[in-house]
Amino acid sequence: MNHVDPTGTVLPSWRPGATRDALVDFLDASSELPTERRLACFDIDGTLWAERPTYAQFDFFVDALGRRVAQDPSLATRVEYAALLPGGSRAALGDLGLARVAMALVELFDGQSPEAFGAEVREFMSRAQHAALGRPLRSTVYVPMLELLAALRERQFTIALVTGGGTEFVRSISSDLYEVPPERVVGTLITYTFARDVQGRPTLRRSAQLDGRPNEGAVKVSNIQAQLGRAPVFAAGNSGGDREMLEWAVSEDGPSLALLVDHDDEDREFRYVGTAETVEEPEAITDVAQRLGWTVASMRSDWASVFPA
Amino acid sequence: MNHVDPTGTVLPSWRPGATRDALVDFLDASSELPTERRLACFDIDGTLWAERPTYAQFDFFVDALGRRVAQDPSLATRVEYAALLPGGSRAALGDLGLARVAMALVELFDGQSPEAFGAEVREFMSRAQHAALGRPLRSTVYVPMLELLAALRERQFTIALVTGGGTEFVRSISSDLYEVPPERVVGTLITYTFARDVQGRPTLRRSAQLDGRPNEGAVKVSNIQAQLGRAPVFAAGNSGGDREMLEWAVSEDGPSLALLVDHDDEDREFRYVGTAETVEEPEAITDVAQRLGWTVASMRSDWASVFPA
Repeated sequence: MNHVDPTGTVLPSWRPGATRDALVDFLDASSELPTERRLACFDIDGTLWAERPTYAQFDFFVDALGRRVAQDPSLATRVEYAALLPGGSRAALGDLGLARVAMALVELFDGQSPEAFGAEVREFMSRAQHAALGRPLRSTVYVPMLELLAALRERQFTIALVTGGGTEFVRSISSDLYEVPPERVVGTLITYTFARDVQGRPTLRRSAQLDGRPNEGAVKVSNIQAQLGRAPVFAAGNSGGDREMLEWAVSEDGPSLALLVDHDDEDREFRYVGTAETVEEPEAITDVAQRLGWTVASMRSDWASVFPA
Repeated sequence: MNHVDPTGTVLPSWRPGATRDALVDFLDASSELPTERRLACFDIDGTLWAERPTYAQFDFFVDALGRRVAQDPSLATRVEYAALLPGGSRAALGDLGLARVAMALVELFDGQSPEAFGAEVREFMSRAQHAALGRPLRSTVYVPMLELLAALRERQFTIALVTGGGTEFVRSISSDLYEVPPERVVGTLITYTFARDVQGRPTLRRSAQLDGRPNEGAVKVSNIQAQLGRAPVFAAGNSGGDREMLEWAVSEDGPSLALLVDHDDEDREFRYVGTAETVEEPEAITDVAQRLGWTVASMRSDWASVFPA
């Protein structure tokens, strides 16, 4: 799939204006950079595809829960699962806390091989429908952002996906949706257990423990260095968890750009603003963007189209 | 640099015989594999370049120690450093244990930025001479293995370097020596500290703590999955620390190959055999190779040349 306009116009779904100009200027200026510095890091949920009303990975977890409860109804009595099943309440979810519920969901895959986990994700994504947008989940990707990925790739950028979500969940879809191979997905990892099968061959099994902290905020910066070995000169995000990554991308001399996707389009997608937690007051991420001079993509104003036709 | 013979012969520095035949057969058969499965993992020290009498990273550490002691002579009184400085004794090193000495050396770089560390490595590598082979350290790479990297790359393999050594040390030389970008170096990582400079910009600083366990044995398998997201179908190594990675590479159906470099050439390089630690008796890695049916590259018999001319 080539997202570049066949007429040769770069970023065809971006409306003329200051945001598109900033992106085109950066694309042009990037030729000054040695190719080893051309690293572009993209958040995924809310940056490359829709994240409301729930993350795709959460939908996958709930779907998997339903299938497991069908096989073993006793699972439905566990409070974290009961809150998510039909008849469960949002209030119960809130009382338990999302972190506890998320870790309970991770336990559903305890002992699974990475290959089996990936196959289960791909099976889900082949049939899942978005709860509100009236289209397949895999088709809630943002066309203007796919065009931006393609334009960067044409300019010899290395593209990485940097997500607060599960690394292996994203890896199962990153090639199909974004043409990004698994080694360039940086996310929240679970720990693997090494074992030998009955024939003595090495195998890996998922555990239910995280490997390090969730990949948000300053952790994204450390994990990009740990996994990719260098700092990006371009970063895109949409939430407080992307703040440090975006600041890092524009912290060195030379061409660089930090892009914030602003969800201000309740007609075509959703309207909401994320919050950056600081040592002082929480601050709207759009205010952080303005204060730090980031480029802001208004979904309503800057995008001629949002989703694939 | 193209390591493939201009006449079009693949693996020109590999002498005709069973080992070369096995490699060529694998290269031919790999066209059956979907490209996303074409992952080849190479150990570095003793597999892609010489590791005797000491690892290149150890030479770098000792060189850095000398430069720091010249600036701050008080460092020379620390027992771990005294053992390494001129006049220090091998016996003292043995008493302290290599792990303790290595962590003391890592402390030399505590607080350094990853960029400054990389620059220091590259400066060292630009001038370092091998202690015994009469050539620059950067020129102790094995020509037959460079040809194998090139042949795999031509067949759309993704090449990764999987080292027990420091990830960031190898990343500083991986592009120049092996044409492998930093995100495809899997090694032993130190932890980074996130901080802000006086202007409030994000920076990363090296700590003196490892991030997880040293990348040897079963840890190599877990770390390949964590960082690269899939299992290799080709792996090359030379020591007990590579055993699980080599076994893993040949554990699935379809074309795969495990290659062991056997250091049996005291005339052109060194003669030694690594040991695989098991729950039973330690076993020579060459015996493991024979028992498990790996392909063995005899440096003496299979390689027409060893180092670059």
